[in-house]
Amino acid sequence: MVESKILEIIRRRHSVRSYLERPIEEEKLLAILEAARLAPSASNSQPWHFYVVRDKDKIDALAGKMPLGSQLIANSFIAQAPVVVVATAGPLSFLTRIASFVVNKKWYYLDLGIALEHMALAACELGLGSCWIGWFDQEKVRRLLALPAGEEVIAFLTLGYPSDPAVPPKQRKELKAVVKYV
Amino acid sequence: MVESKILEIIRRRHSVRSYLERPIEEEKLLAILEAARLAPSASNSQPWHFYVVRDKDKIDALAGKMPLGSQLIANSFIAQAPVVVVATAGPLSFLTRIASFVVNKKWYYLDLGIALEHMALAACELGLGSCWIGWFDQEKVRRLLALPAGEEVIAFLTLGYPSDPAVPPKQRKELKAVVKYV
Repeated sequence: MVESKILEIIRRRHSVRSYLERPIEEEKLLAILEAARLAPSASNSQPWHFYVVRDKDKIDALAGKMPLGSQLIANSFIAQAPVVVVATAGPLSFLTRIASFVVNKKWYYLDLGIALEHMALAACELGLGSCWIGWFDQEKVRRLLALPAGEEVIAFLTLGYPSDPAVPPKQRKELKAVVKYV
Repeated sequence: MVESKILEIIRRRHSVRSYLERPIEEEKLLAILEAARLAPSASNSQPWHFYVVRDKDKIDALAGKMPLGSQLIANSFIAQAPVVVVATAGPLSFLTRIASFVVNKKWYYLDLGIALEHMALAACELGLGSCWIGWFDQEKVRRLLALPAGEEVIAFLTLGYPSDPAVPPKQRKELKAVVKYV
């Protein structure tokens, strides 16, 4: 197998659930958001919105620590992150909705997966940790951040300097279990 | 904004729809598949299977050139690609299906989005082009490749050496149109 920078970053990226109090430099945050902005999407629809949350009270609420958040299923480590990016999709075009219905596919989830992973990889290269969050109360997040109707909250990404520089070993299926030559 | 290798690769990656006949070296293909294997996924479920298609007849069929494929909505350029990776998800665990139903989310689409984009970025760094394909006839692809029941075809990725080294300018919304500080 040939080596590459991408593979090296992919190997280093892991879910970071403990952060230093150190803030994220503005120019690093911009580079991370730019990585998401440039992501490909179905028919170049770019269905995404990225809400950058840095307000301590709102982050505490997302973490389930504040009244509004206390009924979210708690991911209390979120409260440690200096930045949480809440990613939404929509409103989807009429054509996208029709096509999506016809083939029963949620392309915009693929699009958001791509864009947020661009962020996670860009963050990793810049020495920052991140963690994907997919389990939350849609309506409570929507109210907390006053999100527009027609946007669906897809996932969060926490961002911050990891408190532990160690990279844990990855638990993954073997290549032969997931790849078939046909 | 700080520069990074990831950003450079993201800027260079674009949908390549014209390929040289040159085959892909085995060790490059392995590195690309490894990039996907190491992708994160919801609860580390790794719901993916990657079918590596190199058989010319099957690729022609995927491209809509062969009898079986002629009723697919044609992406005739696919026939030029020396490799097409067909990505499926499933079978999903009972828990994943329940959770997915409760919150009406297709996490496995996010997972596949991440894994296939890892491939696309790894390919780009190694000088290869790729193109995401999301529009195909699920059942016809399933029959062509004799895919197991319980797996859903999510997307293809074509892979090959680009016939044109030029990188076209990206058409993307501006950062201020997709990022909000809340």
